[in-house]
Amino acid sequence: MEVASFQRLCYLLLIGLVILVSIRSWFLHVEETNFIDCSIYSPWCTFKNRFQATSNIFLDTQRPTSRDHQTHHPHHPLDPLTIQEINKALSILQSHPPFISSFPAIHSLVLEEPHKPQVLNWKKGDPLPPRAASVIAFSQGHSHILSVDLNTAQVTLHEINEGSGYPILTRDDVAVALSTPFADAEFNRTILARGVELADLTCVPLAPGWYGAKEEGRRLVKVQCFSNRGTANYYMRPIEGLTVTVDVDQKKVVHLSNTGSDIPIPKAQNTDYRQVAQNDPPQMLPINPISMEQPKGPSFQVENGHLIKWANWEFHLKPDPRAGVVVSRAMVRDSETGRMRSVMYKGMASELFVPYMDPTEGWYFKTYLDAGEYGMGLTALPLDPLNDCPRYSYYMDAVFVAADGSPYVRPNMVCVFERYAGEIGWRHAESPIWGKKIREVRPKVTLVVRMAASVGNYDYIIDWEFQTDGLIRIKVGLSGMLLVKGTPYKNMNQVPKEEDMYGTLVSENVIGVIHDHFINFYLDMDIDDSNNSFVKVHLTKVDTSPGESPRKSYMSAKRQVVKTEKDAQIKLKLYDPSEFHVINPSRRSIVGNPSGYKVVPGGTAASLLDHNDPPQLRSAFTNNQIWVTPYNRSEEWAGGLFAFQSKGENTLGVWSDRDRPIENKDIVLWYTMGFHHVPCQEDFPIMPTVISSFDLKPVNFFDRNPILRASPNVEKDLPICRPASAA
Amino acid sequence: MEVASFQRLCYLLLIGLVILVSIRSWFLHVEETNFIDCSIYSPWCTFKNRFQATSNIFLDTQRPTSRDHQTHHPHHPLDPLTIQEINKALSILQSHPPFISSFPAIHSLVLEEPHKPQVLNWKKGDPLPPRAASVIAFSQGHSHILSVDLNTAQVTLHEINEGSGYPILTRDDVAVALSTPFADAEFNRTILARGVELADLTCVPLAPGWYGAKEEGRRLVKVQCFSNRGTANYYMRPIEGLTVTVDVDQKKVVHLSNTGSDIPIPKAQNTDYRQVAQNDPPQMLPINPISMEQPKGPSFQVENGHLIKWANWEFHLKPDPRAGVVVSRAMVRDSETGRMRSVMYKGMASELFVPYMDPTEGWYFKTYLDAGEYGMGLTALPLDPLNDCPRYSYYMDAVFVAADGSPYVRPNMVCVFERYAGEIGWRHAESPIWGKKIREVRPKVTLVVRMAASVGNYDYIIDWEFQTDGLIRIKVGLSGMLLVKGTPYKNMNQVPKEEDMYGTLVSENVIGVIHDHFINFYLDMDIDDSNNSFVKVHLTKVDTSPGESPRKSYMSAKRQVVKTEKDAQIKLKLYDPSEFHVINPSRRSIVGNPSGYKVVPGGTAASLLDHNDPPQLRSAFTNNQIWVTPYNRSEEWAGGLFAFQSKGENTLGVWSDRDRPIENKDIVLWYTMGFHHVPCQEDFPIMPTVISSFDLKPVNFFDRNPILRASPNVEKDLPICRPASAA
Repeated sequence: MEVASFQRLCYLLLIGLVILVSIRSWFLHVEETNFIDCSIYSPWCTFKNRFQATSNIFLDTQRPTSRDHQTHHPHHPLDPLTIQEINKALSILQSHPPFISSFPAIHSLVLEEPHKPQVLNWKKGDPLPPRAASVIAFSQGHSHILSVDLNTAQVTLHEINEGSGYPILTRDDVAVALSTPFADAEFNRTILARGVELADLTCVPLAPGWYGAKEEGRRLVKVQCFSNRGTANYYMRPIEGLTVTVDVDQKKVVHLSNTGSDIPIPKAQNTDYRQVAQNDPPQMLPINPISMEQPKGPSFQVENGHLIKWANWEFHLKPDPRAGVVVSRAMVRDSETGRMRSVMYKGMASELFVPYMDPTEGWYFKTYLDAGEYGMGLTALPLDPLNDCPRYSYYMDAVFVAADGSPYVRPNMVCVFERYAGEIGWRHAESPIWGKKIREVRPKVTLVVRMAASVGNYDYIIDWEFQTDGLIRIKVGLSGMLLVKGTPYKNMNQVPKEEDMYGTLVSENVIGVIHDHFINFYLDMDIDDSNNSFVKVHLTKVDTSPGESPRKSYMSAKRQVVKTEKDAQIKLKLYDPSEFHVINPSRRSIVGNPSGYKVVPGGTAASLLDHNDPPQLRSAFTNNQIWVTPYNRSEEWAGGLFAFQSKGENTLGVWSDRDRPIENKDIVLWYTMGFHHVPCQEDFPIMPTVISSFDLKPVNFFDRNPILRASPNVEKDLPICRPASAA
Repeated sequence: MEVASFQRLCYLLLIGLVILVSIRSWFLHVEETNFIDCSIYSPWCTFKNRFQATSNIFLDTQRPTSRDHQTHHPHHPLDPLTIQEINKALSILQSHPPFISSFPAIHSLVLEEPHKPQVLNWKKGDPLPPRAASVIAFSQGHSHILSVDLNTAQVTLHEINEGSGYPILTRDDVAVALSTPFADAEFNRTILARGVELADLTCVPLAPGWYGAKEEGRRLVKVQCFSNRGTANYYMRPIEGLTVTVDVDQKKVVHLSNTGSDIPIPKAQNTDYRQVAQNDPPQMLPINPISMEQPKGPSFQVENGHLIKWANWEFHLKPDPRAGVVVSRAMVRDSETGRMRSVMYKGMASELFVPYMDPTEGWYFKTYLDAGEYGMGLTALPLDPLNDCPRYSYYMDAVFVAADGSPYVRPNMVCVFERYAGEIGWRHAESPIWGKKIREVRPKVTLVVRMAASVGNYDYIIDWEFQTDGLIRIKVGLSGMLLVKGTPYKNMNQVPKEEDMYGTLVSENVIGVIHDHFINFYLDMDIDDSNNSFVKVHLTKVDTSPGESPRKSYMSAKRQVVKTEKDAQIKLKLYDPSEFHVINPSRRSIVGNPSGYKVVPGGTAASLLDHNDPPQLRSAFTNNQIWVTPYNRSEEWAGGLFAFQSKGENTLGVWSDRDRPIENKDIVLWYTMGFHHVPCQEDFPIMPTVISSFDLKPVNFFDRNPILRASPNVEKDLPICRPASAA
């Protein structure tokens, strides 16, 4: 055999192997793909079919099905890796010399985004910039960071994390964490001693945080268990005080803490939230069906699966295992010239910090970094049509990668829909005293991108809402279950006055423990172009001079262009307020104001933890509500790339303290929303959604009101509807 | 003729007179009633007819028309005065000895609400408590406060206001203010000198505020004028620096200030916001029709025109000339027992404060108290169906009273509608790692009460939104036009660096002057009963003891029942936060927590003005975001009953400083929302709506999640729609 033929044979064998691996992955993850079972979720299926039958607004003429993902190829520099690309990356890694003998666990395998200029210079029709995979792998105690060039089939970067922390947990890690305790005799004895049968046990994998040297140098998961007897809502039935610390690499129990043996397991009664578990109708008058109807279909277009075009907006949208969704290259059409103008290069949830406020043995470590430890995308399950998102939503699937490197499809992870909520875009009615009859009102229609992450007990609903007036609203809704603590108390009259329960008695034997949620958004604003400045518009009281005016005082706005990072570490102050603008100093409006957007704070809460408390060191991004840093490809995750068990030495707080120049540069705005949550009985057994939001709002970006020429609703354009039951 | 016969004749004559007066009023105000002209506002008429034809959900079998108002009679102790009752009050006043020779101007004539126990003890079917009118009249320099008992036909109270301030402006006052300058030669000369023809002039009546002795002791209006040539939006064309001070009782010009003769009148181009004035389509992809559809009709009921019943809520709703709308006796059904439980006895917008931040001659006095000077209800014009409110809205008319005492109808002043905005009531999806397939999501449907006040240039959209989870959201939207200032500058490059323009150059020769909006809500909370307490739940950092925990700190909630008013003067602090609860100390939940609601702040901004600045003295209610006072019938208007030109000596700030006990008493919560508005070009020539809101949220009021048993949407319940154009 010639050498060339031998090479060809090898090549063919390799391709065969890749195909085999792909098929294997496909079968391995078919259960995930089929998570939505038509026999169970018939509304979803009905809807999906119906929608395909009646609408062809999506430029993918057929909505991609799981099958399509197999053959899908990228159309945009920011399109996520396809199944084919993931498999190619995997095969390259398998041939990468250090991994040939021992293949690592894949903790993350995503598109390595091309450098910004490559994306900015790319135009539709151009060949795509070289495609590459960014990989985080773990093997024998080391976290590997790799870049895999898919065009040259080369590993172009291979580094080992020298700092603290580990990558996001894989599903395999979780499986190990949850199965390991069952091999431990003490664990089994304890469970039985608590009166729980092993068959009724549900355990959850809790990130241990970082609390000093004792738990360093190994990947640990703290397992806590519940009784699911008599309820699907096992979260309300904790086996209090039992915490099993598992080394997920050694696959063994490191420590078992059992401090709550005198605490009863709360009863199952009234805890199940599922519709099948409800016997009585609600105590209210029935609500007739109501829905947002669009008989001519939605107005947005989805080009090649990821590019959204609606009204005056255009942006790229992709699912991400860690951030949930990433909105890129958001551009809005100028209301005067019709030209598309850049607003934001990239926006995403960067990290979540959820500290519980109980310092006792079973609780002190509950200080989660949900994005870096569990992944906001990995935990975002398929959305429920008609309930999670209205009719006429477009659903986007995610392609994620399992620990063995094989791709799988998470269907319906993101939805996109138009929203009319009865709101008013602008209005004016003129008093009849002037003899004029003017009443001009414009309804507000917006476009929403939604995902919902179920990080264990908690559900985070994250909306990106685009308005035609140029405003982007970022909205976070919290629902799901409280993380609760068992207690011997059944009524507050049994609780000694001086006792700090660390929470609220929300039901008999159940304490809803006080906690916070902080969610930080990475917002790479590119107002008209990359070179931007951050401006504080400080509102201050000015005293008038004697005799100057009958007024003693007024409020004045003083603009200050911020030079370096530390001056952009913003703590909001109600009595010393400012506006916070990102402007393009070289782009002036028709009357000479710099083009800009401001961040309009909302959902504000500050972390009260000690700055030197270990969890606060790791999540120092919550020390301020606003931060601005110079753009740096490696600074995307506010809690650090390796958040799991990290000490926080490579996070937003540390980067910003370098105090780099940020004037007239490519800058990134970081906004931290916060929620203090003192639970109440209404949160039991499942929480009514709490919503907060903040806005990115144009300020002198448009020369005038960009929706001045919008049309009002008129009767003849609205649909004629009849009840479906009358069909 | 016998004495008895003579009395009978007198009686008949009196009745005849009343009828005559009624008919006269009817004709006088027919133009107001017909403000909505079907030939112009055809969508409204189409809608109204259509709605009547297809729905009978409103227990008034026929929706009251203007004609019905003539014969309408009250059904509930809080129902507003009917036309018949107003006419009766008027005739009683006309026979009231002090007024026989000289009848005063009627500035307010509304229901005098029965005392609280009478309302609380009243049950449907009971006779109504005695009906009475509360009247504010003005005559010969004196403000009269009168109570008129309609049952006994007696004036039961007649007081003269001894303090500062005057009642709300009447439409007659406005007419005088606007016509008086034209009799002044200097005014006419000035207008012509500014190059404006009198036919192109539109003038507005500005409240002068209070700035010392010079303007005391007489009712003054400051008139400012604009050129309406070439635009319906004359607000953008100020004749800058021309302010005419008119004594509206003397009907003469007191002072003419003309400081801006070098300032050009901004051009008309691009200012008109009306649809008829737009030539080009907007620079965006078209948006297909979208509407909230309810093929089975809305689910709420309107009993006798004012009692709203929806889902688990019931409340009384009435228009009010000063507050806009008043929500009374809001009760929610207990999710466990089905019993109706009291939440709020009365809620309404109490005062608005809008200070402009320019101390110069033409601007310093612009520090409005919109509710007390103009009336949020009096300025709330008919809503525009399909644009101000969605389809299937119920519209409520107001019956107001003119300066001569005659009643008139303001049609469609308030709308009530159900809202589905694609939001989620609660949700949870269970990770498949446990092998469970759980995804339970409940859509959120709410009920909205809306009005929109057009106080001159500004439009305030006020929503009361009721959620099935017990939450009440109070939402304020701002739209309409900026109050702008003329300037010689056409571009920022002409403005010297050191110059304070007091605002933003929003167009050539147009400055949008910086200002604030503060809106205070009166919230007479009655949680389960009238005796309530106000509790601060203070969130504080607690440091752990050495060795106690790997954690250094945690956040703890300390409850403090507030004893007296001064301790309930709340300035919100981001880094020293509290929750603020109104609880019923004698009503405990199933596990012993006191039943309560908390106010969840939103739309926070603090007034930065000097506390001794005259406008801040008058609006000291903005010194804190939250106040709590003991219930007092005479303390309803945060800026004082006589706000116009008042010194603020009888306002919320003064009442609260009495430091009365508020523990376990009937208490009133006052919440002040704030908006700092630094204008931007997008606000020109009409502002995209800015919305903020705050919530009243149940805390341990329900024993558990009250919407646990709500149903999800299913396809079969949703309507089948087709485009109307295909009809």
